[in-house]
Amino acid sequence: MPRPQTDIEAGRRLLLDSVEKIVQQRGATDISMTELATEAGMSPANVYRFFESKEAVMEAVAEDWFTDKVAIMEDVVERDISAPEKMHAFFAERFNKMSEHLAEDPELFASYLELGRQYFEVIKGYVDLGDHYLSLIVAQAMEEGYFDGLSIDRCVSLINQMVQPYCNPDVLLFQSQNLSEEKLRQIIQTIFIGLGKSLPESGGEQKPAIKLVS
Amino acid sequence: MPRPQTDIEAGRRLLLDSVEKIVQQRGATDISMTELATEAGMSPANVYRFFESKEAVMEAVAEDWFTDKVAIMEDVVERDISAPEKMHAFFAERFNKMSEHLAEDPELFASYLELGRQYFEVIKGYVDLGDHYLSLIVAQAMEEGYFDGLSIDRCVSLINQMVQPYCNPDVLLFQSQNLSEEKLRQIIQTIFIGLGKSLPESGGEQKPAIKLVS
Repeated sequence: MPRPQTDIEAGRRLLLDSVEKIVQQRGATDISMTELATEAGMSPANVYRFFESKEAVMEAVAEDWFTDKVAIMEDVVERDISAPEKMHAFFAERFNKMSEHLAEDPELFASYLELGRQYFEVIKGYVDLGDHYLSLIVAQAMEEGYFDGLSIDRCVSLINQMVQPYCNPDVLLFQSQNLSEEKLRQIIQTIFIGLGKSLPESGGEQKPAIKLVS
Repeated sequence: MPRPQTDIEAGRRLLLDSVEKIVQQRGATDISMTELATEAGMSPANVYRFFESKEAVMEAVAEDWFTDKVAIMEDVVERDISAPEKMHAFFAERFNKMSEHLAEDPELFASYLELGRQYFEVIKGYVDLGDHYLSLIVAQAMEEGYFDGLSIDRCVSLINQMVQPYCNPDVLLFQSQNLSEEKLRQIIQTIFIGLGKSLPESGGEQKPAIKLVS
């Protein structure tokens, strides 16, 4: 008879907490299943009842990291608000969440990023999921008259690049002192006003150029 | 009598090439003056004729890395072209240069970035110099009628954030396959058209919103 699900869940939780303890102690160095067992006070064989491989452990660690961000994305796309507001919320709420995690324990934050680089295949699925939700918001924006003449994929790519410091935790880590939700709002506004439009061949748009003659 | 400058220059060049060889062989691990002497075939005492400390070596390594980028910036700001063209050139020419270095030897590129993180104080001066040149271009843009109502510092900060993947070699390293000069051009256009303007309170700008009734 299989053990109850809650028992399995408790074992997995204990092991994930043990991963965090190991990472906290010595950074993102490679963790063996044996070390993990020792930290959790289990036999190595027991660890395999909860995770079939080290890769499965790392997938669960990534899932843990992304759970609240995925919940934000799912929630935001369902809201009945305009595309500019929705896109702001889409990036701002995850940015605020990441900023909280960073403020709580900067070293642990950095170690998890290092771990993410080592297991990039595991992360990739979440990056693609983010692009999927962003493409839904871009589609709504197009319905509202924005981004004229551009494809959805092109918009998703350019927008991701223009808000990079707010959605890429590696950049956030190094530049957090320069970032704010209010700057992000101005960037999102700039994107909605400017993306898909072309500059006239010469000069500014708003008033005639004033040339200073020295 | 002091030795001729060229002799000093040749010794420094030999030592910088030795740093590169060490970094190529085993990545961005800490390099001692003794190891550097061995790689260059010098006595440790001789190394100090050329560089007074390890920090001085690292400053010279950074200077080497930045020389061509600083030359590009100095050249671009002097050109007699419009602010949008100038800003594009300012980022595009350095982006192309970094992309070349990355393509030549991705591992060496990554190791130098790691070294840069370890000696961030050395890098900081070059980052500030980039901001200085960018602020000159922003000032020209304002003269041409762009970025109405924003301060130069605010513009510099927001623009750096919006073109981050093209000027931050860490981001470039991981995302080079998504980056292109043509996308950068569209981002610069978006900045010149949208930055400093506000969205109307509701709806798109270009055409009335079409609501699909299912």
